[in-house]
Amino acid sequence: MKSSAKSSAHSHQTVERADKETLAHRINRIEGQVRGIGKMIEEDRYCIDVLTQISAIQSALDALSIRMLESHLAGCVQKAVHEGNGETAIAEVIAVMRKLTR
Amino acid sequence: MKSSAKSSAHSHQTVERADKETLAHRINRIEGQVRGIGKMIEEDRYCIDVLTQISAIQSALDALSIRMLESHLAGCVQKAVHEGNGETAIAEVIAVMRKLTR
Amino acid sequence: MKSSAKSSAHSHQTVERADKETLAHRINRIEGQVRGIGKMIEEDRYCIDVLTQISAIQSALDALSIRMLESHLAGCVQKAVHEGNGETAIAEVIAVMRKLTR
Amino acid sequence: MKSSAKSSAHSHQTVERADKETLAHRINRIEGQVRGIGKMIEEDRYCIDVLTQISAIQSALDALSIRMLESHLAGCVQKAVHEGNGETAIAEVIAVMRKLTR
Repeated sequence: MKSSAKSSAHSHQTVERADKETLAHRINRIEGQVRGIGKMIEEDRYCIDVLTQISAIQSALDALSIRMLESHLAGCVQKAVHEGNGETAIAEVIAVMRKLTR
Repeated sequence: MKSSAKSSAHSHQTVERADKETLAHRINRIEGQVRGIGKMIEEDRYCIDVLTQISAIQSALDALSIRMLESHLAGCVQKAVHEGNGETAIAEVIAVMRKLTR
Repeated sequence: MKSSAKSSAHSHQTVERADKETLAHRINRIEGQVRGIGKMIEEDRYCIDVLTQISAIQSALDALSIRMLESHLAGCVQKAVHEGNGETAIAEVIAVMRKLTR
Repeated sequence: MKSSAKSSAHSHQTVERADKETLAHRINRIEGQVRGIGKMIEEDRYCIDVLTQISAIQSALDALSIRMLESHLAGCVQKAVHEGNGETAIAEVIAVMRKLTR
């Protein structure tokens, strides 16, 4: 699905690329937040403060996954629907959403 | 609450310390998982695979926060109840749980 | 979107109708579970048992929303994509998923 | 507070009872909301609207479970800690929270 996208004029790849820097920036920040809770535990910081920080990371990951789902639906899934492979693409989305909503 | 704990025989601090290495190990692994999704995006990996990985990180953070809540209830909160400050400690726990359950 | 679907051969309406009885059955069961926790509180049942029952209702609602999203993507959204209105349909799905994942 | 629960004047039961009407009211409303989505499906209402309503029910149940956990911690758990049975009570709370956070 990915490789065939490269040959398309309005390919997912192109959309992806414009977005990649933003995503990389977000993930770097989340990585820093996780390292931050490591430091908090190292320094015996109060549990409630660590838990508040964990909930902030969870929110950042929620936002990231929504952002990725959005670009996946707008890109790969729309493309798959046009090519008659919508059912498979939708089944994949549903399977991953089941994991994300738990 | 923190500083007074240090002088107590059955202090939270002591419990914490035995646990600290395990927590540090868990957080290092989560940090690695976050770095991993950074690499996946860098390498244009399929969105669904990235999303699956994000859901794994969310589960690891859920488990971590439950673990910390457990040690907080068994340590600080029990101690606060014994000292007659249960109400405040419970209010803090509820406030953070509101954030964690969203 | 709804009315135009009625004239389509593979309309969402048709899919919906085959599914409606199953959904009605599921919702009846959830309604019964909610009434059940009402009775539990009436009878002063142990908080932990009530909370366990609430978590079962949450799981049933999660499963229901996933099921509805699936039929919405397979029906309305695919149809919208074919008619060139994919962007709007996807924006709606993302908005509702933001609420569901919280 | 709860320590006085031993004298039975301010027992958990009593607190519970004062709260019971509010809880019953909340649960009635949730039951009505669930019945509402049943009607929406009956009337072929737009999936997105049904899903929005489901997310509202989820939020109401989240708030209800937080409310019950709060009264459980302030009541039963504090009492258990005073009686030296804190560990068991905390283990129960953690087990149910694992279900609620999923």
